[in-house]
Amino acid sequence: MDATVDNGTVATSRIRFGGVGGQGIVLAGRLLGKAAAIFDEKEAVCTQTYGPEARGGASRADVVISDEPVDYPFVIQADVLALLFQEAYVKFRSCLAPDGLLIVDTGLVRPAEDDDADHGLPATEIAEKLGNRLTTNVVLLGYLVEKTGVVSREALEAAIRDTVRPEHHEIDMRALEAGARAARGEDPL
Amino acid sequence: MDATVDNGTVATSRIRFGGVGGQGIVLAGRLLGKAAAIFDEKEAVCTQTYGPEARGGASRADVVISDEPVDYPFVIQADVLALLFQEAYVKFRSCLAPDGLLIVDTGLVRPAEDDDADHGLPATEIAEKLGNRLTTNVVLLGYLVEKTGVVSREALEAAIRDTVRPEHHEIDMRALEAGARAARGEDPL
Repeated sequence: MDATVDNGTVATSRIRFGGVGGQGIVLAGRLLGKAAAIFDEKEAVCTQTYGPEARGGASRADVVISDEPVDYPFVIQADVLALLFQEAYVKFRSCLAPDGLLIVDTGLVRPAEDDDADHGLPATEIAEKLGNRLTTNVVLLGYLVEKTGVVSREALEAAIRDTVRPEHHEIDMRALEAGARAARGEDPL
Repeated sequence: MDATVDNGTVATSRIRFGGVGGQGIVLAGRLLGKAAAIFDEKEAVCTQTYGPEARGGASRADVVISDEPVDYPFVIQADVLALLFQEAYVKFRSCLAPDGLLIVDTGLVRPAEDDDADHGLPATEIAEKLGNRLTTNVVLLGYLVEKTGVVSREALEAAIRDTVRPEHHEIDMRALEAGARAARGEDPL
């Protein structure tokens, strides 16, 4: 699966994260955007929209990564849809491109029976087994980046080191590796 | 000074924060967006653009607050420009609307001699005197909200309590009040 759309000569990837407050969705978007732009030298825009949905606790972050400056940052059709909450699945599933990648937390999201997109991992459960449920978003990123190559693993690691507190670096690197292992079909732990 | 633009019936405020990594610019944008949308029941979009400028350490966050869903989240002309770094002043000063509000950290930004916009405060110095330089962004928000009323003080306080760790709540409330006092021309401390 290729998470980029090639519009003539410009390759663009549109990624939407959806979840609920406290799952680190906005931080996941920022980490991916920083990885792309600061460490992989692409352009990236991260958008968080707050509106009636936010008042219900739902949370969403869009990231657009491109070889050129991004002129429209909203994700209409997603190349990658990463969802940690059932409500987000119900709301956003239809915006996934036909050949796009769906990633759900399989412990928290139950896809429709006729949904043959099947990529996902029990991100929250893996994070809990690693010892810190707050790394769920990093487990998810490890999976996403291993599956798509939308940014390099090195850039993602650099973005994490640049953003989160030093005392979290070690567990975040382990969370990243666990997500990547799950993406390769290996035991994540 | 009125920080909203009335396009017929829809009032919209466009706010740009500019600084350098570590000053909490992105968090300032998120707090303002959350205050507007979740606690003041408006619509808000926050955008962080990462690109070549980000690789130089500059940081920027745009917030658009409106009575209606926001269809274009980039700030072309800002109603409020809040800058914590000289380089951000040089880069973004020209995007301030003619009747817009310029807020600079007067300890870190030296406006051009012919720049008669004169609103600002020594936000970093105030934060240091409060005992935590990391609250600079909250001092700035306290000033901005007192000057503009773009969100209610109550909504901003609620957004802070909803976002930052409980152990920071007390100092952030003091930082908010210090910024508001500076905006009223009082001794901030």
